[in-house]
Amino acid sequence: MKANIIIDVMGGDNPAAELVRGAVAGSRGCGAALALVGDKTEIRRALDGFKANIIDAPEAVLMTDDAMSVIRAKSGSSMATGCRMLAAGDGDIFISCGNTGALYTAASHYVRCYKGLRRAALSAIVPLSQPFVMADAGANPEADALSLLRFAKLGEIYCQAVLGVEKPRVALINNGTEPQKGTKIYREAYGLLTASDMNFVGNCEGRDLPLGVCDVAVCDGFTGNVVIKLIEGMGRFMTDGLKSVIGANTKTKLGGLLVRGELKKFMKGLDDTAYGGAPLLGISKPVVKIHGNASEKTVRSAVIQANGFAERKINEKMAEGIASLTVTGV
Amino acid sequence: MKANIIIDVMGGDNPAAELVRGAVAGSRGCGAALALVGDKTEIRRALDGFKANIIDAPEAVLMTDDAMSVIRAKSGSSMATGCRMLAAGDGDIFISCGNTGALYTAASHYVRCYKGLRRAALSAIVPLSQPFVMADAGANPEADALSLLRFAKLGEIYCQAVLGVEKPRVALINNGTEPQKGTKIYREAYGLLTASDMNFVGNCEGRDLPLGVCDVAVCDGFTGNVVIKLIEGMGRFMTDGLKSVIGANTKTKLGGLLVRGELKKFMKGLDDTAYGGAPLLGISKPVVKIHGNASEKTVRSAVIQANGFAERKINEKMAEGIASLTVTGV
Repeated sequence: MKANIIIDVMGGDNPAAELVRGAVAGSRGCGAALALVGDKTEIRRALDGFKANIIDAPEAVLMTDDAMSVIRAKSGSSMATGCRMLAAGDGDIFISCGNTGALYTAASHYVRCYKGLRRAALSAIVPLSQPFVMADAGANPEADALSLLRFAKLGEIYCQAVLGVEKPRVALINNGTEPQKGTKIYREAYGLLTASDMNFVGNCEGRDLPLGVCDVAVCDGFTGNVVIKLIEGMGRFMTDGLKSVIGANTKTKLGGLLVRGELKKFMKGLDDTAYGGAPLLGISKPVVKIHGNASEKTVRSAVIQANGFAERKINEKMAEGIASLTVTGV
Repeated sequence: MKANIIIDVMGGDNPAAELVRGAVAGSRGCGAALALVGDKTEIRRALDGFKANIIDAPEAVLMTDDAMSVIRAKSGSSMATGCRMLAAGDGDIFISCGNTGALYTAASHYVRCYKGLRRAALSAIVPLSQPFVMADAGANPEADALSLLRFAKLGEIYCQAVLGVEKPRVALINNGTEPQKGTKIYREAYGLLTASDMNFVGNCEGRDLPLGVCDVAVCDGFTGNVVIKLIEGMGRFMTDGLKSVIGANTKTKLGGLLVRGELKKFMKGLDDTAYGGAPLLGISKPVVKIHGNASEKTVRSAVIQANGFAERKINEKMAEGIASLTVTGV
């Protein structure tokens, strides 16, 4: 069964037309059906004859809008409309590159969390030495210890379902490896994680994070956002730096030609667009956040990934995992 | 005038002998006098005839010790002894690679903050596109908005004194660029920084941090520790990755030889040991923290850097800056 993917084409840094073209490319790549939410004139023009469901909701939630606006003044926006469609069953998955806080609010309000959960966590798969799941990667700037425990569980289930790791190594991002490190909340979370049924491997410092020491990295959304964007920024810094190194003179240019193939393979691991979207874990139906500056290529990847989610019944697996965790009282 | 440098040679990941050898190498490089605090037998053996003041205080504050132990059960430790020596004027600067929390406690207790300040910030100079100062890089896992404002001021003064930037661009690390991003504390700090006399350039996301967008990056010590160690970890990840790329086959090995010179220059920017120590800004006399896993090379750099601090009267410049800030009520 091919998925029916709802896409908010407004509210990103790039024009709707670019997102529509990316969605079309994704649909061509995987066969998923598209429901495009936004300015109908722009969508129609960009579709250029490609067949898709068009839902006219030209109002965009802006990056500068308050997160609550999406359920108040802008409840008619493309983002709110898309979330309501998902809740009503008019699609299998919702993708948006809009304001993260607003998307989190809209998803929590219109689609709702799984029973027993109060907060969703933005996940992200970080493709370094070995891919790992980050939770929360940016939805909750503040999180208490119990929320951190839940984020760990959500990350564990997602990691099992998507990366196929049977017993994921769960680590808490912290400013030191010792149990007493960090804030009061992190010390509490350390205790809760130690007492849980998860494969908790302890605190993980920033320096070890890129080296494949865990399959799930847990933290609040403030830290998670900084971490994930810093990894991206360091990747860009390195890419730019290597370009300068190779472009320095005739000798280095020749050297660059000789290492190019291997270098490309390695650098691909640092290319965030390859991984597409980041689901809001804990929301009862799949809502996927993609970069605010999502390009055509990013949207294409996200659509193909979303279709895979539906085909592999990731959401059903998440639901089963969550049901078992409410039983154990987490 | 050459500095008299007090060094705690205990409590790091490496044996005292390695730190002593690094100190000797540093002293040979810059002419500074050394006062080595730790196990006198080990120090004497490692000195191997080199002339230095030896202070016997064999008890080490361990990484697993509570931060308060340094002023209670372990007030006779090498770290506490060194701090007291600095306070008493028996040296110009104190260097330790021990437990950061304990060093912060010992410095605050024995040496004390400048008048008008309550909390010191660990600084770090991050050597990427263009070096910038991080404050707090790890001393205060939690910090209120007023503390963040003070860290910004301390970072500004330090940046002026050490990097020679006349009007440093001060940024707040945050999970988005908009003023309303982050936690309540970060939103408050944004307001305080906007109203200050500093050259505040707004919130800085992780992705822009490596790209030279600010001269001073401000955050709490939890975030700062994660950021600085992640930058280090990404550097290591890239170095390892490039080694594999170049070592892959005969062709890439040849390519590696051709780019080697330029590549080395670029990668040197990612080498944390080149920059030595991180002063605790706000402490009335210079206390410098170096890596727990400090090697001989790191200690050597730190000693040479510390000597430069004394020669360039950085501490006097800091004192002047702080005096002016208490006047303006920050």
